[in-house]
Amino acid sequence: MNTVKPALYTSLSPALLQLYDVSTSIVVIIDVLRATSTIATVLFNGAKNIIPVDSVAECIRIGKQIEGITAGERDGRVADGLVHGNSPFEYPRDFIEGKTLVLTTTNGTKLLHMALERGAKGIITGSFPNLSAVCDYLVAMQQPVILGCAAWKDRVNIEDTLFAGAVINRVKEHFSINCDSSQMAETLYLDAKEDLFEFMKRHNASHYHRLTKYGLEKDIRYCLTPGCANVLCVYEGGKLIKGELPH
Amino acid sequence: MNTVKPALYTSLSPALLQLYDVSTSIVVIIDVLRATSTIATVLFNGAKNIIPVDSVAECIRIGKQIEGITAGERDGRVADGLVHGNSPFEYPRDFIEGKTLVLTTTNGTKLLHMALERGAKGIITGSFPNLSAVCDYLVAMQQPVILGCAAWKDRVNIEDTLFAGAVINRVKEHFSINCDSSQMAETLYLDAKEDLFEFMKRHNASHYHRLTKYGLEKDIRYCLTPGCANVLCVYEGGKLIKGELPH
Repeated sequence: MNTVKPALYTSLSPALLQLYDVSTSIVVIIDVLRATSTIATVLFNGAKNIIPVDSVAECIRIGKQIEGITAGERDGRVADGLVHGNSPFEYPRDFIEGKTLVLTTTNGTKLLHMALERGAKGIITGSFPNLSAVCDYLVAMQQPVILGCAAWKDRVNIEDTLFAGAVINRVKEHFSINCDSSQMAETLYLDAKEDLFEFMKRHNASHYHRLTKYGLEKDIRYCLTPGCANVLCVYEGGKLIKGELPH
Repeated sequence: MNTVKPALYTSLSPALLQLYDVSTSIVVIIDVLRATSTIATVLFNGAKNIIPVDSVAECIRIGKQIEGITAGERDGRVADGLVHGNSPFEYPRDFIEGKTLVLTTTNGTKLLHMALERGAKGIITGSFPNLSAVCDYLVAMQQPVILGCAAWKDRVNIEDTLFAGAVINRVKEHFSINCDSSQMAETLYLDAKEDLFEFMKRHNASHYHRLTKYGLEKDIRYCLTPGCANVLCVYEGGKLIKGELPH
């Protein structure tokens, strides 16, 4: 039996992803507010799949081609030419079940495509709504992991770091973690976990301000709630689909 | 009277420096273990000045030219061809007073030259030994600030982040801080401040391991001691010199 634990690293910004060996790792794409929280919600509510694309033009083009639902935001608002935004509340089961969503976001889909270009061994998306599914999967797979924070235009943000910390806090016994960013993320999470929303507010998180300005406090509270859409979201063949835990 | 506070940002890695407007800011170069702690010590102990260079070859060349003391490390050890290393204990007053040190380090001098190339309005170096001098200077100058962590080969590290947090904790009333990295740094510092050394040890900081492996625990303890070499270190005309607070 091989007792060497696989390595786990945290990349706090897409601008740091190049420092880690993506090609041997499962990369967890983390874009807590709101892309990956919405992805979990959409798949939890029975969507057939999600096609993440990195431009609005591509989103419109593919949306027409496959008669999918186009959605996306730029700077926190529905992008021009798209029908839906990036709020998890836009995708209840009676609307999204069985359908395909074509999604573009400011930071999350960009990071996903970076991981893809660098030949990631596997890609899943992570958010508080599907925290346990992510952790269960990583523990079951026993492979190297990179927790990839989408950040905000390459600037490190609190909420993605908090999620990385939450994962680390739950899976650390199963990994070898020689990574200061991971240690910092877990420390931050332990400080914040009693009330993630209050922590964001108290620390004047830049994204908290950006979204509350648009009246999206309800979205933030949802996106910081562990387990409210607990589904594994796996990227396979150009699509995000509901995954199964390995046996 | 202008009551708009200047902005303060923290760049957690040289790979993130490009995100901030260096050309309008005072950049604080932070390389706690051990470059900037040693710089403070050397100037505190009366050295004439320090010439930071970014390669070992350049260090040897300039050292010969000006009959200076060559010093530097690569990966935590004295670099081949140089006479001294990067430990603050190598530079007591009776050795270094009145002399010029030509210094190259793995991360610190690299970041300094990046800031220089991007046209930083001002450059100083920061470390726990000269924490108050740094804070007093930043408050007195009333200009935008970038706390630039040298990190380790672009990977974010705990000790430089802790120092950024210590500065923020002391100067925040005087600045406008809309920067999640800064909030994270201060949170980390508040968690760690009762015993910085224990915090580093407990969190398995990668640099803590690297240096204790070389028997440098004494260096780490010194480099985490606020105020033990409280001098302002300013970069001017190609040299680091002892600076004066503005009146």
